[in-house]
Amino acid sequence: VATRYEWISATTDYGTDDGFVAACVGVIARLAPHARVIDVTHTVPPGDIRRGATVLAHSVHYLPAAVHLAVVDPGVGTSRRGLAIVAGDSTLVGPDNGLLLPAADELGGVSAAYELAEPAYWLPTVSHTFHGRDVFAPVTAHLAAGADPAALGPALDVAGLVRLPPPRVDVRPAGLTAEVLTVDRFGNVQLAARTSDLASAGIRLGDPVTLTPGDAVTLTPGDPVTPSPGDPDPPATAVVGNTFADVEAGALVVLVDSAGHVAIAVNAGSAAARLATRPGAAVSLGLLRR
Amino acid sequence: VATRYEWISATTDYGTDDGFVAACVGVIARLAPHARVIDVTHTVPPGDIRRGATVLAHSVHYLPAAVHLAVVDPGVGTSRRGLAIVAGDSTLVGPDNGLLLPAADELGGVSAAYELAEPAYWLPTVSHTFHGRDVFAPVTAHLAAGADPAALGPALDVAGLVRLPPPRVDVRPAGLTAEVLTVDRFGNVQLAARTSDLASAGIRLGDPVTLTPGDAVTLTPGDPVTPSPGDPDPPATAVVGNTFADVEAGALVVLVDSAGHVAIAVNAGSAAARLATRPGAAVSLGLLRR
Amino acid sequence: VATRYEWISATTDYGTDDGFVAACVGVIARLAPHARVIDVTHTVPPGDIRRGATVLAHSVHYLPAAVHLAVVDPGVGTSRRGLAIVAGDSTLVGPDNGLLLPAADELGGVSAAYELAEPAYWLPTVSHTFHGRDVFAPVTAHLAAGADPAALGPALDVAGLVRLPPPRVDVRPAGLTAEVLTVDRFGNVQLAARTSDLASAGIRLGDPVTLTPGDAVTLTPGDPVTPSPGDPDPPATAVVGNTFADVEAGALVVLVDSAGHVAIAVNAGSAAARLATRPGAAVSLGLLRR
Repeated sequence: VATRYEWISATTDYGTDDGFVAACVGVIARLAPHARVIDVTHTVPPGDIRRGATVLAHSVHYLPAAVHLAVVDPGVGTSRRGLAIVAGDSTLVGPDNGLLLPAADELGGVSAAYELAEPAYWLPTVSHTFHGRDVFAPVTAHLAAGADPAALGPALDVAGLVRLPPPRVDVRPAGLTAEVLTVDRFGNVQLAARTSDLASAGIRLGDPVTLTPGDAVTLTPGDPVTPSPGDPDPPATAVVGNTFADVEAGALVVLVDSAGHVAIAVNAGSAAARLATRPGAAVSLGLLRR
Repeated sequence: VATRYEWISATTDYGTDDGFVAACVGVIARLAPHARVIDVTHTVPPGDIRRGATVLAHSVHYLPAAVHLAVVDPGVGTSRRGLAIVAGDSTLVGPDNGLLLPAADELGGVSAAYELAEPAYWLPTVSHTFHGRDVFAPVTAHLAAGADPAALGPALDVAGLVRLPPPRVDVRPAGLTAEVLTVDRFGNVQLAARTSDLASAGIRLGDPVTLTPGDAVTLTPGDPVTPSPGDPDPPATAVVGNTFADVEAGALVVLVDSAGHVAIAVNAGSAAARLATRPGAAVSLGLLRR
Repeated sequence: VATRYEWISATTDYGTDDGFVAACVGVIARLAPHARVIDVTHTVPPGDIRRGATVLAHSVHYLPAAVHLAVVDPGVGTSRRGLAIVAGDSTLVGPDNGLLLPAADELGGVSAAYELAEPAYWLPTVSHTFHGRDVFAPVTAHLAAGADPAALGPALDVAGLVRLPPPRVDVRPAGLTAEVLTVDRFGNVQLAARTSDLASAGIRLGDPVTLTPGDAVTLTPGDPVTPSPGDPDPPATAVVGNTFADVEAGALVVLVDSAGHVAIAVNAGSAAARLATRPGAAVSLGLLRR
């Protein structure tokens, strides 16, 4: 079924120093001049599919119905497939490398997926290294202009799409260990754990907790976290609160962030610097005696 | 009185690496799809209210009539108030922490101010840590769509709004000492002093001057500036000119910048690096014998 | 002949931390509210005319018909001229310092050029240091709204416009030496050489090559490249391929990039870091025995 879209969102690792984003936006402006583009981010670390997927998934609920163009594509020019995924009121376009599915899940799940196989929807000449401009942007524009996703190429089985391994969360009585999903501009450390995980561990608002940063994630449920050389000794302590200013300036607070994840913050400071942690590492929370 | 706005401007410390700005813009696109957003900046240093206020105040005269959304909000989730301020042909929305008033002054002064107290204009669920998305962006969109500011909450006395202390300027015969207001991308050092201060000090185009960077601002009028360890010795010298190329490459020039402030520049170089100064520090100008 | 433009593109070295871009966009919004602005980049290194010219020239083919505003203007406030250049379906606006001509060439060459001499198309007050806001943005907006370029000032002889020296390329049997034109966000090293230069040197897909980074460009055709202290010893080797993943992760590949230039890349890494090179330096490619 074809829909016309007023809005397009764009998520890439192209940066804004070069003209890569402008070339994609220019292609869209030529083919779908009615559409308006909302930039999600263009500064995903080069090739960091997980990060791109996370930022888009956290934003998409607040965006209007749109064609969501996402390109973090280290396999460009290889046999990796290009995709259009219909999910909820939107369509997602990008490479088949796990980038799109978390956002599709947030939109209510994949209702159809198509391989980009029909060159009529691409630029006449396709480079080996810039499918964002030559394939994904024109497909995005054609979809915004009302093209039927089914015309883009063969339908794909959802189970066959590349999916990133889920980030690890290990909940236990009075504690949890979870992968760091993102670190934001303020240095807030967002864990893969969610509100319900904190509740399952029996940790409540106002509780004091210890924070133990660990090594890169090789967690299996129940594994102990091996402290890394940069760990504070003794472990850092924090309080479970609602917002940054629930603790004094410079103190650690554990809170549920605006995406519904458990996050560690320092009021007027950087928790990532304090804990010497980063995306992909593990952090362990343990309830201190109340 | 309600007005419909075609334009919205946005000034935040959210950065563009995360999806925070996109979430705000998405909320606006859903509620006021007719409105177009002009980004002022999103890279205010985290929590730096003075910097956000200065950038917005310097830009606002050149922007069209708009709802100006500004969020630098270290007190998010506490009892600090949210505001809508009517000023000139525009309305400003953001926290009551001093961020909005310099721009309101540039627009001709506050004609009305309202506390954001009516949840009907917010998102249905309000997080503790992201009022930009959940409160300020939807209020901005409703205003752009024609909502009456008076409907947002109780009217406030302008004298009761939080106002940043004015940056210090101390003019004396043949010299002045002023706080560094901003350092721009080119390393130009903008002082809080204005054209009239230079004139009051009797410093004129073509005059040679000494430049003495000082410590962080604890100035009271007439205080001497204590040289900081990084100071050049003897003091740097400059000439008062009109533009960068009035001096040779690498030389210092004092000029009136495009915002009407006294600024120190190095032609094809960085004055901030040369003087080892930064926003909030003091710089003293002294007239050399003509 | 006057045309109305729906689109404006913007290329500057203003950065996005300050409000400089917002002021220009605001001026455009007031004078040509119908026009939409596509950002090419605002993070050209301060005063780097070559870099600004290159990014715009590589993007312009993919942009819609537009007024292309470009400001990298170290001579602002001096006697350097402002220009409007008609080329193909577009008009370019900016300083006469070489910034605009490479893009004009991409658009099919200059069909007319005018000096910006008529203050009726500028802001009422023109600062000495911010002609982007006070001259170039309002001229851009007036052109988008349908002003005749010939009304902006006297026609200029194309041969008299400032043109950057062409980047050096020296092709020889089984090798070439070329200036590094750009390094992109991924660390890909784009040479001034093009596909045809590779063919002229007799270097073909699948060939192994040596890579020798050299000093800053002082090349005359036939000059040997002096190895710089940071050079790998023995020289780095690469293979000529189509895309990044044609070599294993961490290996060097030479390819034709999306702008048609010869480029050196590291799969999942930075070739600029590997070769310790930068824009303006030379790199020499030599065919290894097949």
